[in-house]
Amino acid sequence: MTHDEHPSEGGAGESNSASGHFAGLPWEVVQARKLVQRETILNQYPQWHLRQVVPESVQDVSHFPTSQLTARENEIVQQDATSLIRLLANRRYTAVEVLKAFCHVATITQELTNCLTEIFYDEGLAQAAELDRHLEETGEVIGPLHGLPVSVKDHILVKGHDTSTGYIAWAFNTVAKRDAVAVTILRKAGAVLYVKTANPQTLLSLETNNNVWGRTVNPFNRNLSPGGSSGGESALIASRGSPLGIGTDIGGSIRIPAGYMGLYGFKASVARIPHAGLLGSHDGMEAIIGVLGPIARSARDLSLFCRVMLQFEPWLIEPPLLEIPWRQSIVDGEGMTQKLTFAILWDDLVVTPHPPILEALRKTKKSLIAAGHEVIDWVPIDHEESWNLIVKLYFLDGGEEYREIMENDPPVPQTSWIMSQVPNGGKPYTVRETFKLNLEREAFRIKVANHWNDTRSRTTTGRPVDAILSPVAATLAPPHDTTRWWGYTSYWNLVDYPAAVFPVGHHSARRYAVPDLIPDFTPVVTPRNEVEEFISRQWDPQKYDNVPVALQLIGRRLNEEKVLGMLNVVEEAFRLDAIRN
Amino acid sequence: MTHDEHPSEGGAGESNSASGHFAGLPWEVVQARKLVQRETILNQYPQWHLRQVVPESVQDVSHFPTSQLTARENEIVQQDATSLIRLLANRRYTAVEVLKAFCHVATITQELTNCLTEIFYDEGLAQAAELDRHLEETGEVIGPLHGLPVSVKDHILVKGHDTSTGYIAWAFNTVAKRDAVAVTILRKAGAVLYVKTANPQTLLSLETNNNVWGRTVNPFNRNLSPGGSSGGESALIASRGSPLGIGTDIGGSIRIPAGYMGLYGFKASVARIPHAGLLGSHDGMEAIIGVLGPIARSARDLSLFCRVMLQFEPWLIEPPLLEIPWRQSIVDGEGMTQKLTFAILWDDLVVTPHPPILEALRKTKKSLIAAGHEVIDWVPIDHEESWNLIVKLYFLDGGEEYREIMENDPPVPQTSWIMSQVPNGGKPYTVRETFKLNLEREAFRIKVANHWNDTRSRTTTGRPVDAILSPVAATLAPPHDTTRWWGYTSYWNLVDYPAAVFPVGHHSARRYAVPDLIPDFTPVVTPRNEVEEFISRQWDPQKYDNVPVALQLIGRRLNEEKVLGMLNVVEEAFRLDAIRN
Repeated sequence: MTHDEHPSEGGAGESNSASGHFAGLPWEVVQARKLVQRETILNQYPQWHLRQVVPESVQDVSHFPTSQLTARENEIVQQDATSLIRLLANRRYTAVEVLKAFCHVATITQELTNCLTEIFYDEGLAQAAELDRHLEETGEVIGPLHGLPVSVKDHILVKGHDTSTGYIAWAFNTVAKRDAVAVTILRKAGAVLYVKTANPQTLLSLETNNNVWGRTVNPFNRNLSPGGSSGGESALIASRGSPLGIGTDIGGSIRIPAGYMGLYGFKASVARIPHAGLLGSHDGMEAIIGVLGPIARSARDLSLFCRVMLQFEPWLIEPPLLEIPWRQSIVDGEGMTQKLTFAILWDDLVVTPHPPILEALRKTKKSLIAAGHEVIDWVPIDHEESWNLIVKLYFLDGGEEYREIMENDPPVPQTSWIMSQVPNGGKPYTVRETFKLNLEREAFRIKVANHWNDTRSRTTTGRPVDAILSPVAATLAPPHDTTRWWGYTSYWNLVDYPAAVFPVGHHSARRYAVPDLIPDFTPVVTPRNEVEEFISRQWDPQKYDNVPVALQLIGRRLNEEKVLGMLNVVEEAFRLDAIRN
Repeated sequence: MTHDEHPSEGGAGESNSASGHFAGLPWEVVQARKLVQRETILNQYPQWHLRQVVPESVQDVSHFPTSQLTARENEIVQQDATSLIRLLANRRYTAVEVLKAFCHVATITQELTNCLTEIFYDEGLAQAAELDRHLEETGEVIGPLHGLPVSVKDHILVKGHDTSTGYIAWAFNTVAKRDAVAVTILRKAGAVLYVKTANPQTLLSLETNNNVWGRTVNPFNRNLSPGGSSGGESALIASRGSPLGIGTDIGGSIRIPAGYMGLYGFKASVARIPHAGLLGSHDGMEAIIGVLGPIARSARDLSLFCRVMLQFEPWLIEPPLLEIPWRQSIVDGEGMTQKLTFAILWDDLVVTPHPPILEALRKTKKSLIAAGHEVIDWVPIDHEESWNLIVKLYFLDGGEEYREIMENDPPVPQTSWIMSQVPNGGKPYTVRETFKLNLEREAFRIKVANHWNDTRSRTTTGRPVDAILSPVAATLAPPHDTTRWWGYTSYWNLVDYPAAVFPVGHHSARRYAVPDLIPDFTPVVTPRNEVEEFISRQWDPQKYDNVPVALQLIGRRLNEEKVLGMLNVVEEAFRLDAIRN
């Protein structure tokens, strides 16, 4: 779903042949070789291995990755990217020591969650040493991210490394001959690359599991998923194994893992952030397009990432990108009215969210009102229809390409589930049918835009609402293989609106009390459909113990800066609330 | 090739049925009814008919449309839109008298060139009277175009009027139930609508001929075409029958007619100017998208049009539009370096331009250098390939939809020619082939972007060139049915760069002398292909007597304001040159 890369084309700059290395071998053999390759690399760094055995029965492993750090290492990995780059530029830390601290944590996190794919600490350390030397000699940083370690989702090209993307057929056959545009910019900016992270088979999954690397698990509760498709990133960053990572999102794949892991994630509108240089299926499909973006530990790191990306004028080399420079002043509040109006999407009328999510909405509403903002209800519009339409756009070819590529790669459970959603009886659409689907999508976008415009009749300002506040999903990080509803995230891909996710709290089974939502929201009693029945039956405070609660903030198309500016407003309201209580 | 309208869908807001009115009747009957309808309307305004008979043998009819105007009427119709709106706002003219003057000229122009389709002077006059009343009573104009008559290309929806778009099947079956977005904005801005203008069968033609209305001819030389597909506009505006018109361009359809008629025309990048609410074939096709834009009598009217369109924030109601407000300050020179670098595309290596066009490039180069700018040669890159690719994108369905709609509508000669270009043996592509074509298009765009970036090695500033100066076409306004090469315009649709056309001179057979181009350009002696052979054999100064010579200025994607700012620079260089000589 990218514009320029496809292993089967041989035009991606990757080494591969029609048949590929290891073609014809059972998939288990390919997997074994990949796993041995990774283990061999990690074995070169025994100093960073966990010095205790964690039984499989221990579910919460989140404290182990930092458990054996020195105080200085711990100081380093607890900071966000914005703070780290300042301290690197000030020479409080060297790039080498920063990277080593993150490698230490990443190594342990890998052991506990299986989040990494390609590992190249050696390259990172050499690059970090070069950055240190440069700063020492010239007194100048290389660029705005001088010395910052950044992790990269598996399907994003990093020169010299395999891009197997969770496909057996691509393993060992997709060594990148060049960097993705975003990676090129990271390097120019002085960032240090050292690991790639797991994504699921097909990429069209909100969990992270594939036959090349196996399953990635949630460090807060290993019975649960860290989300997907950027789930290697979320497990790694939440564990402090990376300060900033890049993921991609065509249905929720940045927002879901960021939300499940209590991180910040940002899906911009299509064509604002560099996106060229990814491997994936359906290359050249444009009916629905994914977005590359940051997963981070603070709101300010989201804008840091976007600002740096656009600072390098990527539109000059990646034609689909819009020449709209990053407007940091808007993030910082310029032009923002004192009183904003938020609309809360409590329930999309398909699957009602689990109680801790509704409670997070209620609390956020209270904080925003206390801070002087207006909050109204968002009237949900056609979420089920949005799913029925977006799966058609995902599968214009009836799933043909997936079936081909996975010929010798059995479907993992979430692949089987998404393939059960394939429309049109698994047949490709005709070109004229694709025109009609484009028109349906545009009609949908017009409907939602007008619906947003019409909120002006319900605000005290007479202006339409500024943002929508929404669940990220109907559940917290779910038990493996149980994801059934994408509508809270994929809806915003369909209409192409920017959306940020941010942490609001942490669910603890021990401290859980059924929230009192009335009068803000009246919980649904009788499931309205089979999916809701499945998901509502899932709810059990114990099952989801010890995972974060997050929300999503959505703005109008191409208003990336305003969304991040409003996220600051929301967080300020939380701060005021915390002071008050 | 639009996003929301298709008569056959019944969703366009137009009245039509599966069969449609007059279905089954011979096309000549439908044509006759359409022509009678138009004549009946014009017969209500005998005061505006030409009071002399012009023999068919008279080729130059350009002076007749204004030949019987009063001095005041003539003063009105000789002005550009920018001047007219000022004088309307100042109440030097009433909206009614302005409209009457243009109706007078339009009526005569119609008689001589066959440029009009739907005529609704009555509505325009009522609207103008209302505007006058409003200004009289309130002292305020309705909007920035208060009282300005604007003509509209046939396939753009104007509420209450047929949108036959040059198709017999659509005649009487496509009465618009609502306005196109651009038309909505024109009305809000105070513009007065009074006529729609001819476009060719299929719209994919750079001439203007169809079976509903017949052929539109060039008022400067009726043996020649006024261009197309916005050829009704160009014939009308050049004759002073409209001060400003809206056309559309997916391969040259604004620029070709504007250039042939000595007018100004502007094709913005896709998604900057409102485009929803057009009828046309291939609705929902997105591989290559057309652009709506102005045809005008001055450079400043081009930016007036864009500025007014974006002033109404059309992105709030038309989702594909980019929220990039119009930056008039850039048009006015802000941020523009004193010394600009222009690259001249003399010859696209497919079809060399006729001598007057090369001479116009030579003269412009001289003026720009004299004004202190740098001029280098643009090295053409893959123009033939660009055509082979864009016709695939035009005809993803193998021409199926055209064949269906024209079942009882014989192809006019230019339709036969474009259908001879249909790729893939007239079969639709599969959806996966369309993905590959999208990738080919993106690879092409990357190649051209890098080629532009690389010009920095040949400029004295070390920066890439600011603009490309190019022919609009290989010929001046051509003899009817002889258009064979779109490459000078369609290339910029393929890469989606903004391009303005502007008049440079007038070709007169009597004053013609073979230009001395060396050392700037060495003319091609032996035709390099059959198309060039055809076009080079066409050249005869007498054949093209009495038509304008124009050029095209091309900028980088989404740099609309900079292109119009540079057009001002070019015109300033001409002015300096005129003073000097």
